[in-house]
Amino acid sequence: MSEPNTVDEGVAQPKTPLVKEIPPKGADLSEWYQAVCYKAELVSLAPVRGCVVLRPYGFALWERLVAALDERFKATGHENAYFPLLIPEHLLLKEQEHVEGFSPEVAWVTHGGNERLSERLAIRPTSEVIIGPMYADWIRSYRDLPILINQWVNVVRWEKRTRPFLRTTEFLWQEGHTAHASEPEAREEVVRMLDIYREVAQDIAAVPVYTGEKSSSERFAGATHTFSIEALMPDGRALQSGTSHELGQNFARAYDIKFAAEDQSLQYVWTTSWGMSWRMLGALIMVHGDDRGLRMPPKMAPIEAVVVPIVKAGDDRVIHAARDLLAQLKGSGLRVRLDERDLRPGNKFADWEMRGVPIRVELGANDIAAGVATLVRRDKAKGEAGGKVTVALADVASRMTALLEEIQTNMFAQASEFLRTHTIAAGDTAEFFHLLRERAGMIDIPWCGRAQCEAFVKVETSATTRNLRPLDGAATCLACGEPATVRAYFAQSY
Amino acid sequence: MSEPNTVDEGVAQPKTPLVKEIPPKGADLSEWYQAVCYKAELVSLAPVRGCVVLRPYGFALWERLVAALDERFKATGHENAYFPLLIPEHLLLKEQEHVEGFSPEVAWVTHGGNERLSERLAIRPTSEVIIGPMYADWIRSYRDLPILINQWVNVVRWEKRTRPFLRTTEFLWQEGHTAHASEPEAREEVVRMLDIYREVAQDIAAVPVYTGEKSSSERFAGATHTFSIEALMPDGRALQSGTSHELGQNFARAYDIKFAAEDQSLQYVWTTSWGMSWRMLGALIMVHGDDRGLRMPPKMAPIEAVVVPIVKAGDDRVIHAARDLLAQLKGSGLRVRLDERDLRPGNKFADWEMRGVPIRVELGANDIAAGVATLVRRDKAKGEAGGKVTVALADVASRMTALLEEIQTNMFAQASEFLRTHTIAAGDTAEFFHLLRERAGMIDIPWCGRAQCEAFVKVETSATTRNLRPLDGAATCLACGEPATVRAYFAQSY
Repeated sequence: MSEPNTVDEGVAQPKTPLVKEIPPKGADLSEWYQAVCYKAELVSLAPVRGCVVLRPYGFALWERLVAALDERFKATGHENAYFPLLIPEHLLLKEQEHVEGFSPEVAWVTHGGNERLSERLAIRPTSEVIIGPMYADWIRSYRDLPILINQWVNVVRWEKRTRPFLRTTEFLWQEGHTAHASEPEAREEVVRMLDIYREVAQDIAAVPVYTGEKSSSERFAGATHTFSIEALMPDGRALQSGTSHELGQNFARAYDIKFAAEDQSLQYVWTTSWGMSWRMLGALIMVHGDDRGLRMPPKMAPIEAVVVPIVKAGDDRVIHAARDLLAQLKGSGLRVRLDERDLRPGNKFADWEMRGVPIRVELGANDIAAGVATLVRRDKAKGEAGGKVTVALADVASRMTALLEEIQTNMFAQASEFLRTHTIAAGDTAEFFHLLRERAGMIDIPWCGRAQCEAFVKVETSATTRNLRPLDGAATCLACGEPATVRAYFAQSY
Repeated sequence: MSEPNTVDEGVAQPKTPLVKEIPPKGADLSEWYQAVCYKAELVSLAPVRGCVVLRPYGFALWERLVAALDERFKATGHENAYFPLLIPEHLLLKEQEHVEGFSPEVAWVTHGGNERLSERLAIRPTSEVIIGPMYADWIRSYRDLPILINQWVNVVRWEKRTRPFLRTTEFLWQEGHTAHASEPEAREEVVRMLDIYREVAQDIAAVPVYTGEKSSSERFAGATHTFSIEALMPDGRALQSGTSHELGQNFARAYDIKFAAEDQSLQYVWTTSWGMSWRMLGALIMVHGDDRGLRMPPKMAPIEAVVVPIVKAGDDRVIHAARDLLAQLKGSGLRVRLDERDLRPGNKFADWEMRGVPIRVELGANDIAAGVATLVRRDKAKGEAGGKVTVALADVASRMTALLEEIQTNMFAQASEFLRTHTIAAGDTAEFFHLLRERAGMIDIPWCGRAQCEAFVKVETSATTRNLRPLDGAATCLACGEPATVRAYFAQSY
């Protein structure tokens, strides 16, 4: 933790660029991504290096993810709590691997009010080291176990580059921290939480993922085992979207978290931690978006449908019918908005397409005369079969509910097809290296599990293992030729 | 913002004291308060100066308050967003009054990773100065107004003393920030949000409050008008529990937030901000608690009722009946828990009384034989009429729902009676000073409104104005004899 007196590249960062039109997604994913994040008003760049503002539409999206996770955490017996933002330096230094992993990323508070502090305070990059001493305080006997706690908080990790949701100095996440009486219980917890991440990613965000253990070099600093969910982005890069860690007794030893077992012996607890951040939203945006902007899977959509009245000046009947329809849809528990802005319908269409609202309801004077409305699906391309349906006004709510299910299923199927066709079992070593350099997707090989082998692949291709799963039968590592011990997905990653 | 090189009194703070029994509330409110906060497991002291950990039961209480407020914010058209934790120093310096008010309380980040920053970053003590530049970026025309945004965040204000919920270095709160096209609209917003605070305090937390404007010396730094809700604690001190500020065009000028009006003229917006923190929980604890611990108003209670089976060893029928009852109550949407711990019933009773659970359901073998359960109200003293009722098992849910309403009403009535009897219109100047020195409650006088007068009263009695309301008719200031301009509540305060 030396303090070279260098000056950073400046705290300020450029203003959010004004995006007139987003570039095609296929041309440059990164440019498309940033443009759509700003244009759809998910985020703005903040006047603080590396930080973004989550705007109301972006925050509403985050609230959907929070609700889906929080409900599942509580259903599995977890409770929320809140631990301090600031961590005295001496606490951070107690777990050696952990401090080595995190200290290069820590923001330090050195002054409070007008006083210089006698000890620096770290802004939490993660909270194991402030939670450890509390658990040591709270846990006396096996009767106090398990402790199953989660917190929803902001964390800070000093970053050089900013990419909305994917990499920011400050980000929002949840971190679960549990303590158990035995190693098998802790392992069960880690698996349970990984499965919740998989379920929320796939069934709610419609983002297919691979689950598995991380290699030792990709493990969380201080963990004995790290498991992850890994999604594949359209540019062939993987995005780690949630992690679940067995911490063994490492933190229990460092923070002296002991309990009296049923047999009266004094033992160290077994701890776990697990986290998902707003990064998951980045995966959702990249996986589902298209040249017209975002596409929201219905279960994550802050707005499931928008009603756009097609109005001729002076004709109030359409507005009244649209308001009636809005009330009907809200009454059915749907998240719906009516767009009464003084804009042309075409501009409104483009606006809501950019925001990815799953269904647009068009309602004009002729529709009302015929007693119908037109429902337009955002998940279908323009002109694609089934993209537009005309529905009797009385049936819009029930039809919409069915359509939202269909859209959710269709978006997951599309994303799954992409993952399937971009998961490639390499045939030989040359092909393996070639596919990685081409960034062809998740490259699946029997692997030796050795850190040196992984380091070599990284130097050659910038790819790393994403996660691992058991090997069936004997095989040779396709990267190096040593005996294989696992199967691994390799990919370049965010 | 000088930096004397003094050393603070040490970052570490004592461990949470182990509380065996809480002292009587009447003997020393402050000792009772801290003891009950620890004993009921609302909070623990953290190993960081001035900070507490919000434990699961405390956080569940906070979640109830968050839900009550958030629902009302959304129903009045507000959306949530998230702005950065860290604020570059130059932004803080733009609004002069504001910086003078807050800079003595700011925690400063000076290093990120291993680098010294070229500009210090403040941890937000409140967010006007980071939100201002964003609004300047987002607002172009009257069509963009109003902007109605809230955020739920942690803030840091450097404090010397720690009192759970009432005064901590870091605390959780919400801060609303709105921008409007005209002063009357901004004023309407400020009144609307103050009224939501009053409603949540009174109708949800069962804490009666006085609403009114703050005096100029008690105003938020940078505001043109500050309004507050003020509750009265059992020791005769007032607790400011929520504030709503008209910021005029002060921040609009400082951060250049302009809009093109309908008549094409370029104008500064009118902004407001308003906040309620976990301090409201401190009011709830002090107002309602008794010698047996917390008393939770039902609408805030994380657990509305606890079922305690009175079991003889080997008799499973009671446990089974208790589980059936639990299912019945949960099915009715009640927040209920079954206590199956291996403890004596008396210990369980004391435990849930300490936590303030509004209703305890006792169920023994005789009850089951008779087809009844006993409901015990936490709001009544031991032996008080109506404190225990025997109810047919099939009717427990409906009876409980009615009882919870009664308890809510009764607790608000009790607290209102205390406020009423401790609000005293002083008869003359001598009595006024005497009552304040005695800490007799909210002392109500016609007041001149002059800062010098308020300062004199403060020097003499340590009391200040809490809030003000219009005066009817001519009167003389009871503090100084000058002509009165308002009526004011004076009290010592937290």
